[in-house]
Amino acid sequence: MAEIDRMLEANVAWAERFPGSKPVRPARAVAVVACMDSRMPLFPLLGLDVGDAHVIRNAGGVITEDTIRSLTISQHLLGTREIVLVHHTQCGLQATDDVAFADLVEEATGRRPPWAARTFTDVDSDVRESMRLLRDSPYLLSHEVRGTVYDVDTGLLREVV
Amino acid sequence: MAEIDRMLEANVAWAERFPGSKPVRPARAVAVVACMDSRMPLFPLLGLDVGDAHVIRNAGGVITEDTIRSLTISQHLLGTREIVLVHHTQCGLQATDDVAFADLVEEATGRRPPWAARTFTDVDSDVRESMRLLRDSPYLLSHEVRGTVYDVDTGLLREVV
Repeated sequence: MAEIDRMLEANVAWAERFPGSKPVRPARAVAVVACMDSRMPLFPLLGLDVGDAHVIRNAGGVITEDTIRSLTISQHLLGTREIVLVHHTQCGLQATDDVAFADLVEEATGRRPPWAARTFTDVDSDVRESMRLLRDSPYLLSHEVRGTVYDVDTGLLREVV
Repeated sequence: MAEIDRMLEANVAWAERFPGSKPVRPARAVAVVACMDSRMPLFPLLGLDVGDAHVIRNAGGVITEDTIRSLTISQHLLGTREIVLVHHTQCGLQATDDVAFADLVEEATGRRPPWAARTFTDVDSDVRESMRLLRDSPYLLSHEVRGTVYDVDTGLLREVV
């Protein structure tokens, strides 16, 4: 397990140019919900500074109970009011479906997951479905949400309307 | 809703210096699970380049069904084998408890969340509990996990052993 050692070493260089302490409440009162994809360094990609925004990420950037938990904490405890979704082109979740994925895991581990992988086919529809789920959540203080798709080949973000 | 418009504008500058396409599989075969805290820009903080690592984030950086779903996809579909946890000092989830948080949400929205906020008191214990949950998961191909705590006042990462 070498990767964490490389990260700990790289972190020393980060700490040397550390920009200083910031408040726990996000300065721009916004939370980003994005896919875990390795090609999206969200801070530079969205022009975020340290302390600006909460960043929630999972496979697909989909809305789950855990996403709602995180956003509820973000809004009720830490004052965010806007939500921005970042899905992207060429997602790994478009290359399979929920049944095929459960088969794959069962074959490799002997255990079939009781949860769905949340695969999808059309990324714009997936963003719209996520916006709908957020607008329907009874736990949020603000339902202001807008969704985008990131093009992993050009670096450009496109809003889904 | 102004924040997304600022992000879309900032993204144009990112696309102008876009480093080019990368494969969907993370180059360093590692997944990071971290808190959503706004003070942690994980790519520079860990020395990650575009395409290096999956990044999963939620309130607290805790292990939920959604975290397991994301890591299972990361390992079975996209080849990651190491997991690195990044919790941090001065977390908003240390300033409350699960009952007080549910009271707060119920008072503001009229609805009591059926899920726990996953508050905690000791950050090192919380990291150890997360490592234990990952090692116990039957769906993962690799249980190689190490945990860290990020100091939001110095920028330094400390491994929890």
